[in-house]
Formats: sequence, structure tokens, C-alpha cells
Amino acid sequence: MRLALAEAARGLGRTSPNPPVGCVIVQRGEVVGCGFHPQAGQPHAEVFALRHAGARARGATAYVTLEPCSHAGRTPPCADALMAAGVARVVVAAPDPNPLVNGQGISRLRAAGLDVTVGVMEAEATRQQAGFRSVVGRGRPHVIYKYAMTLDGKVAAQDEANGPVSSAEARTRVMAWRNQVDAVAVGRGTVLLDDPQLTTRRLEGGRNARPVLFDPEGYIGSQARAVRVGTLLVTRQGVRSPLEGDDRVTILPSTSLQEALQGLARHGISTLLLEGGPTLASAFFDEGLIDELRVFVAPKLLGAGLAALSLPVRSMHAAAALENVQVEQVGPDVLITGWVARK
Amino acid sequence: MRLALAEAARGLGRTSPNPPVGCVIVQRGEVVGCGFHPQAGQPHAEVFALRHAGARARGATAYVTLEPCSHAGRTPPCADALMAAGVARVVVAAPDPNPLVNGQGISRLRAAGLDVTVGVMEAEATRQQAGFRSVVGRGRPHVIYKYAMTLDGKVAAQDEANGPVSSAEARTRVMAWRNQVDAVAVGRGTVLLDDPQLTTRRLEGGRNARPVLFDPEGYIGSQARAVRVGTLLVTRQGVRSPLEGDDRVTILPSTSLQEALQGLARHGISTLLLEGGPTLASAFFDEGLIDELRVFVAPKLLGAGLAALSLPVRSMHAAAALENVQVEQVGPDVLITGWVARK
Repeated sequence: MRLALAEAARGLGRTSPNPPVGCVIVQRGEVVGCGFHPQAGQPHAEVFALRHAGARARGATAYVTLEPCSHAGRTPPCADALMAAGVARVVVAAPDPNPLVNGQGISRLRAAGLDVTVGVMEAEATRQQAGFRSVVGRGRPHVIYKYAMTLDGKVAAQDEANGPVSSAEARTRVMAWRNQVDAVAVGRGTVLLDDPQLTTRRLEGGRNARPVLFDPEGYIGSQARAVRVGTLLVTRQGVRSPLEGDDRVTILPSTSLQEALQGLARHGISTLLLEGGPTLASAFFDEGLIDELRVFVAPKLLGAGLAALSLPVRSMHAAAALENVQVEQVGPDVLITGWVARK
Repeated sequence: MRLALAEAARGLGRTSPNPPVGCVIVQRGEVVGCGFHPQAGQPHAEVFALRHAGARARGATAYVTLEPCSHAGRTPPCADALMAAGVARVVVAAPDPNPLVNGQGISRLRAAGLDVTVGVMEAEATRQQAGFRSVVGRGRPHVIYKYAMTLDGKVAAQDEANGPVSSAEARTRVMAWRNQVDAVAVGRGTVLLDDPQLTTRRLEGGRNARPVLFDPEGYIGSQARAVRVGTLLVTRQGVRSPLEGDDRVTILPSTSLQEALQGLARHGISTLLLEGGPTLASAFFDEGLIDELRVFVAPKLLGAGLAALSLPVRSMHAAAALENVQVEQVGPDVLITGWVARK
């Protein structure tokens, strides 16, 4: 299943609105087929793995990170394909939350006499499928807030004179993340101050996620480097933006962050990497819209500057614990990741 | 030498104004003697190790974390004791910066025909002796700023309603540190708000470091829990304190933090664990008086609260890089330690 999850990861950021899925077929202890879902409209992971295995799939065990589908969508049902290939046993990491599937893939396999096990590495699988599950369950993308702060908790100096907080190694890691999400979001302040490109330019084989610019009052113009084909612009309902008429840009007028995120989900965004700044992130946090954190702590002190989150009034309900915390050294920095516990 | 450093560590917090020193004597690959300096006025590490080794010191190698002394202080010179015991080889981690020794111990051994190696694990040894070296070199204690912050960089909520930032495991670790320093410092705000005991009460065999209370305007009274026998109180020159006449307390009137620290060194404080709050720590940091950091990062978010350092104006010269950064998980928290790089 670990291998199937690694296969699935190859599709991260490409499969929305579908989930990333991986499949590995094992015959007498030997891997005879591997596959992953590369993109919506393309065949599912099981199909690639079965093609790879060929006749050796007969009597084999298939490890799949998500329950095989039972309905004919853009592709024929994978449960049927596994049955037709003569697979004897199917090990599933997590059931499909999609109401069109939801257990039916599993019952179909069992009804056909296959041995089915469900729940192997389920936690890892559901985390990998977080974007898909968030859209299916809540109608909005999974939101990851990423920032780099100093050891005294500053994400930026007041006058920006100290350069980036994090190391080159950390910034390369961020590009790898951009390659695995559907969209990358920043607020107006970040665009006007830093004019980021939000690309994966230092990453071989990377593709750029869609930029999402939160610009309620319509300040951002077409010269901003994050404005390109595919850019999504969130404005406040009724505000005119200089980007109206720019055919590279899709504008989503919204009355709230919730509504904006629902609009993004409708535009195929299942995973959103929120890159700041603190004003936008604090608004997300205050409304409980941050699901995951990826924080670089840089071994330096500034003494003064901006915090990652800075709500004007302390709101008790905003305080949150993290789960599944992991720690890693990335160059000179410490990367701490975790998931916001739901209360 | 690693063993000698571990021996030395047993004296941490007890030896001031002397340094912690460890000595291990090895005869044909076998450890035949170990010793450490337990307290000022007691014999040095070499003496304990030689007593332990007895006749087996003849022809042996002595590993010492600091250059053996060559002058008769409260105890006879250790260089002579090593020679008298017939030790053949001496491996020294770091030279003694004390002008009374400074290389003379080494030359004395070499002149007597002993084989002397200097500089083995020198960085580790000088860090372990930081308090002693700071007093000898700068006339002030080595200052360690310890704090716990959330992943959004807050050391406390604005209304304290969320309880302590760090875990029980982290707080136990802090008690172990208190046991290894000469004094523990807090500002007036922390005393009035939290009334901490600043003890090692959860630590078996621990002894309490001396509390140092920074109270420039003389607000702290005798009912504060950190006021006990041995407490040092730093006030602004000319200010009257309610603790005047309290014979448990020594008052150090000072015109600056620098002067206060020099006064603490004269009272035998070589290592000072600064426990906050942010106002006091920011003043220390602004004057370049923080040498080492020990920071717990707790996997939670507050959204609003106080930062570990918060200077009213951004002072470029205050920005600092850390060296010798180490990362460790302590319970649910991440402990990041480092040394402030001197510019």
C-alpha cells in the first residue's frame, strides 16, 4: 500500500476534480503492475496497473488507495475491470466518499466473490485525498497555509530589508508543493509588495499551479507577475477590477471567503496553497478555513516584524491544536507540518 | 573526551565562579578513573579522577575538558598532580582563558615530558564552559533566553485564558535547565502576572537556581513566590523597593542591563536562564545580551497574543543569525536551540 500511495502521489495536483489514486498488483510476492491516475479524463489507476500486469493479474492481489469505482463515468467502472482481469483479492486504503460510489465498489467486488480488505493505511490515504474529500464533503478546497517565520515568530521584517526569512532549500521545497496543488493563493498586499511569480521555476518537470489572487477592492492590475493564463481573481461583489476584460483572468465576485472558496471548487480547485500574507491568512484562520499548516522556522531573530497570524481581537474560538505533527530539517530551517484539529 | 564532557556536565550549575570540568583516565583502552569538579572550593576534576585511578594512572592518558591549572588557588595545581601520578599523555579539549593559566598548564606538562594534545572536541567544551568564559572574557554571565511559542509565534495569549503554551514534558525540561544554571531571571511583569516559583520541584535531586528579578521601578513585594533566600533583585539606581530590609534578598541597583549583569557576575552568577517576559527579553536582545536560545514550538495556533521579542522600533543591528542549531522533539513540542552569532 505504501507503494500504491507513492504511485498516487505522482498525480498530485493534476487529477482534480478526481482524487489522486495509485494501484499496485502483486502476484506471489512480486509486483506485476503499477499505475496511477494521471489526470481527469484519463484512465483510473487500476486500468494502468492492470494493463501493466497483463495476464499476471489473474489470481493476484490489487492494492488500491481508494475504493474502486462502480459507476461508468468518463471511464468504465474499475470494479468491473478488476473482476474481468481475474484479480482474487483487493486491498483498499479508504472508501470513496462520493455518493455515487460510497461502498458500492466494495460490495460489487465482494458479490463477485473477491476477497476485499478495507482500511489499510487509511489515515495516510485520506490525507493524500484531502482536496477531493474536502470538495465532496464541504464544497470547498482543502486549504494549506504555508509560511516561514523566524525563531521569534516573524514572517517578515517591517521594512523588508532583511530579505527572505527562509533558505533557498526551503523555497525549493515550496516549489515542489506548488507542483502538487491545484492553486496557489496570495492576498493583495503580497502582490503589491513582493510581486511574486508563484511558479515552480526551479523545479525540473514542474508545472505551475493556478494563481488565485484575493483582491477585494480591485487594486491588482495586469502588470502583476502572478497574472497569467488561468489566474483566478477574487473580488468583493460589486467592486470593479482593472483586470475585467483581461481574457487570461477569471473573476470570482464574492461576498465572503466561504463563498470564494466554493467558487474555486466549482472551477476545479480541490487543493489550495495559501502563501499569505498575514492579513489574508488571519481572515482564513478566523473563519476556520485553514486545514493544514506547513511552517518553516528559520534559525534567526528579527526582534520586530509581522506575525504569521495577527487577529485584531483575540477570538478564543480561533485557537486551534494541530494533529499529525511532523518535523524535518530542510537546509538550515526546521519544517513543522500539521493538520488543524476540528473541534 | 565525550565521557569527560558528560562527567563535567554533572557539575553544571554548581561550580561557579569555576567552570564545569570533567576528567577521564584511560590505561590501555580501559577507563581507570573518572572525576568532575563538583563545586568551587572542592578539588578539581583531575584530582578525583587520579584518586579513582590510583596506581593505574602511571603511564595512562588523561582526558580533560579544560587545560589543567598551573597555579595554586584554593587547591594545588592540577598539572603537578598529573605529573606526580606518572600520567604519560594528556588530551585537553580547550585552553583555559583565565590569564592566570592561559597555556601555562600545557607548557608545564610539556616541559615535564608529557605528550599533550589540545583541541579535541573544543567547540563542545567551550560551549559547556560558556558561563565561565563569559565572566572571564566579558565580565558578565552567559545569557540563555528560553521561551515557548505557538506555531504562529505567540508566547502567551493576550488574556492568559489558554493556559501554558508548552507541554508538561517541556516544562520538566525547563526544570532540568534550572538545575544546570546559576540563576533564573524574570521581569516584573512575569512576577506580577504569573507569580512563578522558578524551582526544580518536579526534578529528583534538583537544586534551585537563584532567582533574579528585574524590577526597575520597585513593584515586587515579599509575598512573591520567587522571593526566597538567595534572591537577587535588580532595580533602577535610586528607586526604593519594598524588598529593602528583606534579609533573604540582595538588591543590585543598576543604571543599565549591562551594569546589572556585571553585578550578577560579581555575585557568582556565570550562567543566567532568562525566562521572560517579552519586555525584558526584548531589552536584552536589543542590547546584544542574549547568547543562546532554547525555544519550544508548540503545535497550536492562537491567532493573537504576545511575541517572544517585540521591539518598539525595528533595529536592524538587532537582527541575528543562530549557529549550532539543534532540533529535538520533546513530548508534542519541538525544541530548537542555537547560539546567537556574534557579528
